[in-house]
Amino acid sequence: MSTHLFDDAIALQSDSPGHFVGHTHKAYWNMVGPFGGITAATIVQAIMDHPQRLGEPLSLTVNYAGALTEGPFELQVTPVRTNRSTQHWTVTLLQNDPAGLPVVATTATAVTAARRETWSQSDTPLPTVPAPEVLERRMMFEGVAWLARYDMRPITGPVPHTWDGGGDTSLTRLWMRDEPPRPLDFAALASMCDVFFPRVWLRRATQVPAGTVSITVYFHAGSAALAATGSGYLLGQAQAQEFRNGFFDQTAQVWNQAGVMLATSHQVVYFKE
Amino acid sequence: MSTHLFDDAIALQSDSPGHFVGHTHKAYWNMVGPFGGITAATIVQAIMDHPQRLGEPLSLTVNYAGALTEGPFELQVTPVRTNRSTQHWTVTLLQNDPAGLPVVATTATAVTAARRETWSQSDTPLPTVPAPEVLERRMMFEGVAWLARYDMRPITGPVPHTWDGGGDTSLTRLWMRDEPPRPLDFAALASMCDVFFPRVWLRRATQVPAGTVSITVYFHAGSAALAATGSGYLLGQAQAQEFRNGFFDQTAQVWNQAGVMLATSHQVVYFKE
Repeated sequence: MSTHLFDDAIALQSDSPGHFVGHTHKAYWNMVGPFGGITAATIVQAIMDHPQRLGEPLSLTVNYAGALTEGPFELQVTPVRTNRSTQHWTVTLLQNDPAGLPVVATTATAVTAARRETWSQSDTPLPTVPAPEVLERRMMFEGVAWLARYDMRPITGPVPHTWDGGGDTSLTRLWMRDEPPRPLDFAALASMCDVFFPRVWLRRATQVPAGTVSITVYFHAGSAALAATGSGYLLGQAQAQEFRNGFFDQTAQVWNQAGVMLATSHQVVYFKE
Repeated sequence: MSTHLFDDAIALQSDSPGHFVGHTHKAYWNMVGPFGGITAATIVQAIMDHPQRLGEPLSLTVNYAGALTEGPFELQVTPVRTNRSTQHWTVTLLQNDPAGLPVVATTATAVTAARRETWSQSDTPLPTVPAPEVLERRMMFEGVAWLARYDMRPITGPVPHTWDGGGDTSLTRLWMRDEPPRPLDFAALASMCDVFFPRVWLRRATQVPAGTVSITVYFHAGSAALAATGSGYLLGQAQAQEFRNGFFDQTAQVWNQAGVMLATSHQVVYFKE
């Protein structure tokens, strides 16, 4: 039985509690390193696999300190504080430099938490959009491996057809799911919070070098809501608030097709020019 | 010459590069520990004071792992990776438990960066609101020390007058500045991203126990923009997107009176019931 490429990409070996070894995967390669979402997913999976984990992911911040190169990497995953209903994690991803010395490529912090039923309220409803079934799958770019791992169906704010400097919005909405479909889990949800191409490309209709510096994901759904989502489509929405002197922010929301808010996310992104 | 209480509260002694000792300050006390914003500010100040720092704050994530108690604390501040234009930091705040053993109370990561002039675009303009001078300073609550450290002038979404369960929005807008006025710096800006009372209180018009679990701040302004802001008022805006099973998120924006976006911020907050 073959596994999903996503599971291959986030696979980890653990030789001692909190120490994991992984390997970059060509199927999730971006332009100059792995797709940032797969790195975030790998970190989530390491926390999920940690023998001392209590609760489920609530928040995750991943800082991309340097591009990973193709090859193995190490993860050090530490539960630094465990409370009654929350647990705090620090994560360091290391990769050897050409001289064989370990270098920090990524840092992360996370909180896992025990959810319990309380008063709840959704104040950011699923936008009114066409169903994924009536839209076409579109490849944003050719030649970027990880894009082929997702079935993405843009509704608004696709990659500009022409780079003519004529952009007027940074809002993208799209349906997305793993390709082939795969039941949703926290790792996959973290990854899908990072599928949005750089907002600066859309806002300016100009393609400039850009890369995520730091991403934060807040998980609003527990495992029951993820199980109910299954392998269905998710609606992803992303928009920038401010572009200023080489950096911009991006806010994102992810719902399932039933309208349940699964995650909200934010990132700060470097851009050139 | 007396210093500002804010400077007293974030004052640190360093005995070796990256190791700092501070002390909680009664003037910024919240209900069961220091105001979270002053802890975030202290972490920013430690990074600013680090002899190896390059660039200025770009992003900050602070995870409140446990309430601080009154007394001294230690900060370990490490530049884990320095690139050409960005530098990545990890921070651990430790406080001794009753047995004298150091316990992690707070973790943080940050990125400092060299800003350079580029194409820029503000897509979230300052809302149309009355000027601070025509509004009255209001104390949100009596008996909470840190609230007296800010001149806050609510425009919309003040603390409910009656806790009758009748809330219908989580949006707050207010003008704010240090009281007495103090020239804005990165530490003060980080602190002011956390002044908003729990959104659940406003949305439900019900006062339940609540506390920030993790906050992220993206600094859009460099030191020149902060200097231009001086000790003027800032407009702060905060709103929740989703309340679900014991946690909610909050997005926030902070502009100066000239309409420059200084910071965007997000947090995930625990609440009971």
